Amino acid sequence: MKLWKHIEHLRNTAPLVHNITNFVVMNNSANALLAVGASPIMAHAKEEIPEMVQISNALVINIGTLDSSFIEGMLLAAQTAHSLGKPWVLDPVGAGVTELRNSTIQRLLEFKPTLIRGNASEIAAVSTSQGIKSKGVDSSMDSAEAVEYAKELHLKIGSIICISGATDYVISEEQIYEIKNGDPMMTKVTGLGCSLTAVLGAVLGASGKDPEAIASAVAYFGMAGEQAAGPGSLQLHLLDQLYAMDQSTFEERLKLWNYTW
Amino acid sequence: MKLWKHIEHLRNTAPLVHNITNFVVMNNSANALLAVGASPIMAHAKEEIPEMVQISNALVINIGTLDSSFIEGMLLAAQTAHSLGKPWVLDPVGAGVTELRNSTIQRLLEFKPTLIRGNASEIAAVSTSQGIKSKGVDSSMDSAEAVEYAKELHLKIGSIICISGATDYVISEEQIYEIKNGDPMMTKVTGLGCSLTAVLGAVLGASGKDPEAIASAVAYFGMAGEQAAGPGSLQLHLLDQLYAMDQSTFEERLKLWNYTW
Amino acid sequence: MKLWKHIEHLRNTAPLVHNITNFVVMNNSANALLAVGASPIMAHAKEEIPEMVQISNALVINIGTLDSSFIEGMLLAAQTAHSLGKPWVLDPVGAGVTELRNSTIQRLLEFKPTLIRGNASEIAAVSTSQGIKSKGVDSSMDSAEAVEYAKELHLKIGSIICISGATDYVISEEQIYEIKNGDPMMTKVTGLGCSLTAVLGAVLGASGKDPEAIASAVAYFGMAGEQAAGPGSLQLHLLDQLYAMDQSTFEERLKLWNYTW
Repeated sequence: MKLWKHIEHLRNTAPLVHNITNFVVMNNSANALLAVGASPIMAHAKEEIPEMVQISNALVINIGTLDSSFIEGMLLAAQTAHSLGKPWVLDPVGAGVTELRNSTIQRLLEFKPTLIRGNASEIAAVSTSQGIKSKGVDSSMDSAEAVEYAKELHLKIGSIICISGATDYVISEEQIYEIKNGDPMMTKVTGLGCSLTAVLGAVLGASGKDPEAIASAVAYFGMAGEQAAGPGSLQLHLLDQLYAMDQSTFEERLKLWNYTW
Repeated sequence: MKLWKHIEHLRNTAPLVHNITNFVVMNNSANALLAVGASPIMAHAKEEIPEMVQISNALVINIGTLDSSFIEGMLLAAQTAHSLGKPWVLDPVGAGVTELRNSTIQRLLEFKPTLIRGNASEIAAVSTSQGIKSKGVDSSMDSAEAVEYAKELHLKIGSIICISGATDYVISEEQIYEIKNGDPMMTKVTGLGCSLTAVLGAVLGASGKDPEAIASAVAYFGMAGEQAAGPGSLQLHLLDQLYAMDQSTFEERLKLWNYTW
Repeated sequence: MKLWKHIEHLRNTAPLVHNITNFVVMNNSANALLAVGASPIMAHAKEEIPEMVQISNALVINIGTLDSSFIEGMLLAAQTAHSLGKPWVLDPVGAGVTELRNSTIQRLLEFKPTLIRGNASEIAAVSTSQGIKSKGVDSSMDSAEAVEYAKELHLKIGSIICISGATDYVISEEQIYEIKNGDPMMTKVTGLGCSLTAVLGAVLGASGKDPEAIASAVAYFGMAGEQAAGPGSLQLHLLDQLYAMDQSTFEERLKLWNYTW
């Protein structure tokens, strides 16, 4: 596999990515998008959402900090993307934690996200909400434990599923990518999962629904976070590395495997 | 006094802290909580606030950027915490500056915050709003000048009072802690007071209403901010230091005294 | 020209700057203001806007993330500043992209901003919306191409116009300042244009409607961003440099020219 081509293609395509995301990570997500060569739009007003979705190459919806006006905007954006055939990614932050989050996810899934990215317990909670039999969900669940949920969720709604954790998984039809890039310190910085979701939105804008391109970007993001002394310096180095990463570093550090399921 | 045990206890307990805070500092507050070993939840929708307060170990309310929907959410959260007996901390940002802030603080105080943290003029303004006789409030007030206000405020509503400034004070029944950790450069970075409030929320979640634990965390936060060349590098080093601080550094750098009043 | 005096005056005056800005950059803007010696207020609730405008030395309005409640607040703030004779700056983020942005800008212009700062395509779009004949607008427009628009816009509404790009321009009655400080890496960090707008708001608060002071601050901001290895480190160094800049560095690095038009 020559995966670096996907990162180059992302940088050369410079997709325009429309984000409706949470207040905590808006700044980080925009910076991560700029660092990988994409152009971020952060906009949530219902009045301008259809125009924004129309001009963008991809849409990112992240439900980290909900309120009723954001929910309306998210539904309108997802519906517009779906009807225009634009790729979009859902980050179901806090799935399973409150009724509001579960019901919002339920309504968003009607518009068929191209990709869903979350941690193990979020993916399990989304699956359970779709009638997939619960095997028990807890917040300290391991990413490997969510793989079976992800397969069933993929079969049911067709979205590519990305599970983040110490090991990351990208699951699509009969294929599974396993990625071991990243660092435990990444759990000590807020919004890195959300930033990854935004970057995957950019990949959708550049490459469409391509599991290999998505898995490559998961590895790229993970290795950009591998060198830091603490959570403050990690944020800085992550952006610098996303920007500066070259092919030889990428190929040396890559820890990615591909299987059929 | 062996104060390091409070920091260790905070890290070992890993409390879940629900924050309803201002838009400017949501990211910093979440990162400060992660760096000290706590788990942040940032959520403000009325529909999910009772569930969030229920699962959390402590609540943080910061009125930095108000609007009517946030005010409703804050009141509901404070009421829920109060009725469940969960500890909560109030950061009365801009107390005394506008009528909206004063009236919001007034309503929040009905739900008896476990702790109130602010600068001298904010603590004086909160006190005055509670009928405590004004000795004159101005924004350049020294933290020592607010100590008498804080004592009266404590006697009146029972909250522990933390005053931030060049010298910090933690005031509770008959006790006063005086802390001289910190650096003047910390006034050149936005949201550090708000981040400290969030960290003190975590301390409430780990140790309950314990003035010694609160004073220890004030010193810990101050010393984490003591080494930086400028406001940009201070933000980075603060997070790295909150994460990496060890007992010997803590004990060497500690500038804390305890008196009876 | 001895331009350093304007930076010194800004630091000595320490203006209070009220910001109604977008969610993505609130933190950066507040930090940039602190780093240049100003005091930021970030507040958007209609209930307290008149009080906030009253106590501030200048107002910053940035339409990056609109919604109906923010629009109402912005209009009230601009109206209050205009009727009190307080200087204010408009950052028309995304002008020309959606109908909502165009109509909001149109309404804000009735309150005569002291200064408008944007990139070339934004300045061209604002001009076109004021009936100035379109020469064709596209988002990759060069800043030099917007100069003719800016002159006509200045003649029509009286605002000083600042165009940001590889070369920056400050345009006022018969005068044009051309500034070549800055670094291409600055386009890879979100919110730097917004932070510059906030800093220019501080300059208005310190020096009033003075094109030379504004041009000096544009150069100062640009040179603070000139040394960084990547987008993460640029954010850090920018704040450290805004804070630490001294007269000799400023004079050595200055790339600014002044013409009559």
